[in-house]
Amino acid sequence: MEGKVQVYTGNGKGKTTAALGLAVRSLCAGNKVVIGQFIKGMDYSELKLPQYFDKLSLYQFGRDCFIRRNPTEEDINLAQEGLEKMKAFLQDPSIDLLIFDEINVACEYKLIDPKVIVDMVKERPKTMEVVLTGRYAPQEFLDLADLVTEMKEIKHYYKAGLKARKGIEF
Amino acid sequence: MEGKVQVYTGNGKGKTTAALGLAVRSLCAGNKVVIGQFIKGMDYSELKLPQYFDKLSLYQFGRDCFIRRNPTEEDINLAQEGLEKMKAFLQDPSIDLLIFDEINVACEYKLIDPKVIVDMVKERPKTMEVVLTGRYAPQEFLDLADLVTEMKEIKHYYKAGLKARKGIEF
Repeated sequence: MEGKVQVYTGNGKGKTTAALGLAVRSLCAGNKVVIGQFIKGMDYSELKLPQYFDKLSLYQFGRDCFIRRNPTEEDINLAQEGLEKMKAFLQDPSIDLLIFDEINVACEYKLIDPKVIVDMVKERPKTMEVVLTGRYAPQEFLDLADLVTEMKEIKHYYKAGLKARKGIEF
Repeated sequence: MEGKVQVYTGNGKGKTTAALGLAVRSLCAGNKVVIGQFIKGMDYSELKLPQYFDKLSLYQFGRDCFIRRNPTEEDINLAQEGLEKMKAFLQDPSIDLLIFDEINVACEYKLIDPKVIVDMVKERPKTMEVVLTGRYAPQEFLDLADLVTEMKEIKHYYKAGLKARKGIEF
């Protein structure tokens, strides 16, 4: 089966969540899946997922809080280390699905050059599916992608003052 | 924790997938999750998910193909049976997350009256999170929801002639 490139972007809830859903669907089909999460390193519930699935690996390339503006040198170094790791995964034909979670945000904050990702992804084994998530998907990713969904916020409880909840948002 | 109502709608890929992602995140947090899939009964990869998680149950209330227009009496009966089952789950305080997958489509095809769902959901235990997915979310659901995300198709490989793929779309 030929692998495609999927992008999930937009300001609404459901991007990382959809990537997780894709991961488990793929795992249920017997596939090997790797998730790399950029620009975040908090204790998400989903970090436990590899305990349930032998064929899933999950890595975090960020710090303990989601970065906003003005990334530090540490943020840049972590993202670059992540990039190197993902580059190696992109050359591993045994991986069926490779997820770059929040990579769009890493590009928006100039931690990573989207052109580098595009070149890497184009050179991957033909069978590998790649998923790129996060707000602010760069034009380079939209051009590269076979599928793009914009998650559009119509209504959000954050606006009503509700904070992120364990097991729902993280 | 107070449960909210989330709606995932729109014409883009990622609605059922996001609901699956929410389910596994919630399961990883130790919660009990029930998924009811309306208007479809195909052999999806995700049907294997309960093999990995003791606290997940998944039911299908549809036939072996996704219904389009002109539902038959059998479609109506299956949806109504599903509704009865989900009504019972909605009264079970041990369930943390209850997912009505494709319920929006079931309402669009007049298999189910959205007002009946709204009344049922309003009466649920306060701790239960409810997720409603599918294209064509009825206005009643948008009004009820605390969170609504529209999955908007920007680009889709179906348009390039690609068929649904095991482990990716099902």
